[in-house]
Amino acid sequence: MKKIKVGIIGTGFIGPTHIEAIRRLGFVEVVALAETSQEQAETKAAELGISLAYEDYREMLKNDEIQVVHNCTPNHVHFAINKDIILAGKHVISEKPLAMNSEESAELLTLAKTKDVVHGVNFNYRQHASVQNLHAMISSGDLGKVNLVHGSYLQDWLLYETDFNWRLAPEVGGKSRAIADIGSHWCDTVQYVTGKKIVEVFADLATVIPVRKKAISGSNTFSAVNHEEQEYEDVAINTEDYASVLVRFEDGSRGVFTVSQVSAGRKNRLSFEIDASKSSVFWNQEEPEKLWIGHRDKPNEILLADPSLFSVEAKSAIHHPGGHNEGWPDALKNMMLNFYTFVREEKSLKTDKPNFATFEDGHLSMCITDAILDSHQQQKWVKVKQEKEVYS
Amino acid sequence: MKKIKVGIIGTGFIGPTHIEAIRRLGFVEVVALAETSQEQAETKAAELGISLAYEDYREMLKNDEIQVVHNCTPNHVHFAINKDIILAGKHVISEKPLAMNSEESAELLTLAKTKDVVHGVNFNYRQHASVQNLHAMISSGDLGKVNLVHGSYLQDWLLYETDFNWRLAPEVGGKSRAIADIGSHWCDTVQYVTGKKIVEVFADLATVIPVRKKAISGSNTFSAVNHEEQEYEDVAINTEDYASVLVRFEDGSRGVFTVSQVSAGRKNRLSFEIDASKSSVFWNQEEPEKLWIGHRDKPNEILLADPSLFSVEAKSAIHHPGGHNEGWPDALKNMMLNFYTFVREEKSLKTDKPNFATFEDGHLSMCITDAILDSHQQQKWVKVKQEKEVYS
Amino acid sequence: MKKIKVGIIGTGFIGPTHIEAIRRLGFVEVVALAETSQEQAETKAAELGISLAYEDYREMLKNDEIQVVHNCTPNHVHFAINKDIILAGKHVISEKPLAMNSEESAELLTLAKTKDVVHGVNFNYRQHASVQNLHAMISSGDLGKVNLVHGSYLQDWLLYETDFNWRLAPEVGGKSRAIADIGSHWCDTVQYVTGKKIVEVFADLATVIPVRKKAISGSNTFSAVNHEEQEYEDVAINTEDYASVLVRFEDGSRGVFTVSQVSAGRKNRLSFEIDASKSSVFWNQEEPEKLWIGHRDKPNEILLADPSLFSVEAKSAIHHPGGHNEGWPDALKNMMLNFYTFVREEKSLKTDKPNFATFEDGHLSMCITDAILDSHQQQKWVKVKQEKEVYS
Amino acid sequence: MKKIKVGIIGTGFIGPTHIEAIRRLGFVEVVALAETSQEQAETKAAELGISLAYEDYREMLKNDEIQVVHNCTPNHVHFAINKDIILAGKHVISEKPLAMNSEESAELLTLAKTKDVVHGVNFNYRQHASVQNLHAMISSGDLGKVNLVHGSYLQDWLLYETDFNWRLAPEVGGKSRAIADIGSHWCDTVQYVTGKKIVEVFADLATVIPVRKKAISGSNTFSAVNHEEQEYEDVAINTEDYASVLVRFEDGSRGVFTVSQVSAGRKNRLSFEIDASKSSVFWNQEEPEKLWIGHRDKPNEILLADPSLFSVEAKSAIHHPGGHNEGWPDALKNMMLNFYTFVREEKSLKTDKPNFATFEDGHLSMCITDAILDSHQQQKWVKVKQEKEVYS
Repeated sequence: MKKIKVGIIGTGFIGPTHIEAIRRLGFVEVVALAETSQEQAETKAAELGISLAYEDYREMLKNDEIQVVHNCTPNHVHFAINKDIILAGKHVISEKPLAMNSEESAELLTLAKTKDVVHGVNFNYRQHASVQNLHAMISSGDLGKVNLVHGSYLQDWLLYETDFNWRLAPEVGGKSRAIADIGSHWCDTVQYVTGKKIVEVFADLATVIPVRKKAISGSNTFSAVNHEEQEYEDVAINTEDYASVLVRFEDGSRGVFTVSQVSAGRKNRLSFEIDASKSSVFWNQEEPEKLWIGHRDKPNEILLADPSLFSVEAKSAIHHPGGHNEGWPDALKNMMLNFYTFVREEKSLKTDKPNFATFEDGHLSMCITDAILDSHQQQKWVKVKQEKEVYS
Repeated sequence: MKKIKVGIIGTGFIGPTHIEAIRRLGFVEVVALAETSQEQAETKAAELGISLAYEDYREMLKNDEIQVVHNCTPNHVHFAINKDIILAGKHVISEKPLAMNSEESAELLTLAKTKDVVHGVNFNYRQHASVQNLHAMISSGDLGKVNLVHGSYLQDWLLYETDFNWRLAPEVGGKSRAIADIGSHWCDTVQYVTGKKIVEVFADLATVIPVRKKAISGSNTFSAVNHEEQEYEDVAINTEDYASVLVRFEDGSRGVFTVSQVSAGRKNRLSFEIDASKSSVFWNQEEPEKLWIGHRDKPNEILLADPSLFSVEAKSAIHHPGGHNEGWPDALKNMMLNFYTFVREEKSLKTDKPNFATFEDGHLSMCITDAILDSHQQQKWVKVKQEKEVYS
Repeated sequence: MKKIKVGIIGTGFIGPTHIEAIRRLGFVEVVALAETSQEQAETKAAELGISLAYEDYREMLKNDEIQVVHNCTPNHVHFAINKDIILAGKHVISEKPLAMNSEESAELLTLAKTKDVVHGVNFNYRQHASVQNLHAMISSGDLGKVNLVHGSYLQDWLLYETDFNWRLAPEVGGKSRAIADIGSHWCDTVQYVTGKKIVEVFADLATVIPVRKKAISGSNTFSAVNHEEQEYEDVAINTEDYASVLVRFEDGSRGVFTVSQVSAGRKNRLSFEIDASKSSVFWNQEEPEKLWIGHRDKPNEILLADPSLFSVEAKSAIHHPGGHNEGWPDALKNMMLNFYTFVREEKSLKTDKPNFATFEDGHLSMCITDAILDSHQQQKWVKVKQEKEVYS
Repeated sequence: MKKIKVGIIGTGFIGPTHIEAIRRLGFVEVVALAETSQEQAETKAAELGISLAYEDYREMLKNDEIQVVHNCTPNHVHFAINKDIILAGKHVISEKPLAMNSEESAELLTLAKTKDVVHGVNFNYRQHASVQNLHAMISSGDLGKVNLVHGSYLQDWLLYETDFNWRLAPEVGGKSRAIADIGSHWCDTVQYVTGKKIVEVFADLATVIPVRKKAISGSNTFSAVNHEEQEYEDVAINTEDYASVLVRFEDGSRGVFTVSQVSAGRKNRLSFEIDASKSSVFWNQEEPEKLWIGHRDKPNEILLADPSLFSVEAKSAIHHPGGHNEGWPDALKNMMLNFYTFVREEKSLKTDKPNFATFEDGHLSMCITDAILDSHQQQKWVKVKQEKEVYS
């Protein structure tokens, strides 16, 4: 069996999770990585068991064996690198956001279409087996007409004023934080599930901690550190810790969501309830295998992920019998499985429907973020603008 | 022991629950009730074991033995009856809303103050033991500074287009439905718990089912009826099935809540999360004994209601050892216990702090509802107006 | 309306809860109480709003107005008092256990039958609305044939060696503790629900804390006390903190349960799972309104107590719409409602089927306890003996 | 980097899950598989992306490149194959049970020690991050002295009489079914977590469905099939669907567990509660990231798996930030990671302590199963026999 060959750019937190997910497939091989220096690249390559190490990703893009490249770098370099990957004629999987604004993402989308590469963006939450099954349930009309969507995405890693991270700096993380980082996942997931686009928003944003204390020696995301005896400098924060956004979908149905990075005890709690004309559903990413289904005339249901109880369309998203909990790494694996199966079958996004988020979804996400920021500034409802020509 | 004597006006669903709650106290006696006809009054009096039956509540108000009167009638007569009770110099417990608009409720509040009667409004959810305990936790600073409040109040009793009830008619139920009926409870509870008033709102309302089918023979709230072979007439609906409201509290902190009466499987789900600077909490009225307490640096907690684990201030709200589930009827009993203890101790609202919602809270509730309706119409942020002189 | 008149013997923890439950009914009046001294009786009578105070319950039994007497005393005097109540020709509700052993309880049962009084024992957990509904579901065959029953009843109030209480002394509490106190509730509830009697047992008992420290100044059950500076004496404990019991039902189906009073964090957790040929169910007293229903071929269900979703037979056990949580006090009220309705309708246990536990159930409970103690001593399976003549 | 080379024997359900788990590590390469025919072997090799395909595993064992072999075959050939692997001097990971009885497993253990190969048995549940953390908590004394352990392992895949599978035939699956298949996992997990061995048992076993209907055309485990129009033959069943077992640990502490394969709605529910002198814990494999920690004097806790909240010893078992659900595949990966790290570091079981279950654990498991079967037959307490010389 000839395996699809892959290169990875960036090996911070998310790069290695891509690599591990890819390896589970069996028909794809990670042959190269690129880092910011040759030394760093070689260290990581040895650690991760990868043959080729590049200090310049542009060199890696010249390697003809490599068919697919993953962009796992920080936000502010996404645009330039995505552009280079596409121009090199490689298929691409990018971390979100695709770029720093919707003009850039529109450019990338156009370019990717022109070059006819397969393009994916890592909106992984839609890849959970239960989310796939919910998508199938709604498509088939099981729940009736979707009327309302409400939920939240809550984290606590920025709860304390001493929490600091590159994502807090607009020039690296972008002008939006909570909305761009996690609100984008919420919107992608509910749009995927309901099959409806968000077209108008009203937003209220807040920076709950307007001045943070940056440790002078560096920062430690996602870890418990002894903060005593640490020296800090004050940094004014311009991006939001919190937002609540009223939304309207393309068919006039309503929704609302809240994002926060300062909700103690909520580690990564993306959740939503969908109220439809027959039944309702609730899903929470921290218990991804459970789908609550609410009824008026009979007991409510808890569907524990189980291939024997899933819709035909969702069976390929679940890989073990019921009760064998699949989680976040398995959703990421599904993303990779769907993307690489598409590539292996030599499909084209011009003609074939993908079962993963593409740059089209990535661009829509940026347009929604722009509309939300705009609405907050203007304190009025704002329509989501998508450059129509991109889709023609 | 001389018992406090009480009369009840209205014996539909809520009247008998008041009576039962009062009887649990032991030092209060329901001696009379008033209904819309002598026959109805006597039937109900016999059924409920009450001595005196009146066809005109005004006659009942002349009974000098009666010290306290409960207004358990439909919304559209609340104002007139509350006014009569106060003018008769009786203490009063009214179901909410106090009246049909905030001008009327302001008038009632002024009058009640003038006559120096003890006035209560049945915002019962703040009376749950766990809510009382949460109030104490926040007051004492256990959670730190409250930054965010978000939640919802969801029901499903109006899910189907064939669901019909007097509350749907604005002339009986009032110009707001979901907000006035259940949103008012959400706002009262979170304001009580946080100790902060809502001062500004932005609202999005929707009538999900704009035309309902009214059964020609009548309606049956809260019951499963065979709808087949039933004849219906179309009725246009002008009140909201759904609303989402962005709110700002007096200290600038933010919040958002959603109300819906069309969320299948949600029977009476008032819930909220409060994110504070140290910890978060979540409470859900359908599991009233559980308080989730979220932390960043240690495991989250589930505080199952338990006098031995409660704050000193909250111990009087819980009446059994941990694990002996107290619920909705016990919260109502707490309302009555607090109100009648206040009366028994001959306290006055002029000088003493009550541990129950008064007409002041009932009036504030109406002002918030008015602001929400106003915001939805104008599509902009609206300040909650309270006639300041009322409080002087 | 002429109300049924009632006297109460014993006003510790459980007596007042009986009084409050009775008062909710409206057609029953507590007119008297008896305590161990006139002073104590009068203090309690004033506190609880009861007219008559007796220092000798035998005097109270001479009061002809009183039709029903509640025995709310400590275990070691249950037998003598129950006997006196019956001999006085009064209907009786006794706290469990009925007596100190099954010979005594057999005598009481025979006597109660002879005198044709209505006799009830306070097995309250079968009175939860969801338990009543489950009983109806199983009776009607909804779950298929019951094959397995397993569960536990866990508490933590005796976790520490410094926890002490009269129930620990065999001469007051009886020779069994965990089994008699809480195991009896578990057995009653599952036998009621399944309609099957336990006929054989194999038991393993343990005294986890064989020597306890008794505070020299007294004990405080169910409360958090500062134990520092307290002086203690060592007391050897002869009753079980823990037991696990394998059981066989009359039709050969199997079960097992565990009881413990040393399970930290479990306050009053009576729970059981019933596995039947079509579906399973799980119920937990700490979340009494939820009934989990397990299925093989469709999603599992959570039936939140709701009159509109309940069996016809169970509707009378629930008094509010879905989502209005009813708990422990409401189960006790149901016990009283069923008992007093039986009395009001002048039914006889000779001819009418009660919907409450009688002395027959109370006696069976004692026989099971005896068999469990016997099995543990002999380390073999022991049959539950019931004196057959009692039932003839 | 030179990768460790691996061969797999058997590619049914569990073989491919081993392969996928291994691939995630990055430093191990699956180079060969063996199946029951050359055709089958080649088909599977192509499908799974593996280079070498053998029809006789003995040929594969001659391949000197292969250092480690996985035994993923049905139970009745485990012994012979394990023996061959060890005799070939390869390190071995075997599915459980190691053999068909404890004499065979003793022989394997002795042989493996003699040949000094690294031997692992796939008791994967102890590899869940939360289980690892719980192990560390108990080892460090956080919970105090462990007094009681109780729980169950429930499944529903054999609920219906039409459910049939090779595991039901004693000559293939072994003389015990529910105990050997799933009870063994329960025992291994709680022994691992508490650090205490089970030394004595009293068991009650039952075959709930004594005659099953075997589909004439074959069986389909773990799938929902339309059973209509299917023809069946009756097959008498001699292995248990259910067992409850009282256990005693080496230090005299008590426990009990129930296993069942006929509990509707329970897909793979291994759960246990451990009651210790300070605190209790509850863990349920269907929600593997949640650890409930019960307390007497403070609220109970829910520890959602999170590296920043874990013990130092458990951090290596968790690979993502809190809220990024890891599940069953991740526990299996941990098993492989620990085993292969041990191999990579050239450790020996003679001198180094493994963090995975070895043949010693696999042999102990067989001894417990034998004692349970023995106890059920004799209806008395039976001691677990382990040939002592094995451990010398």
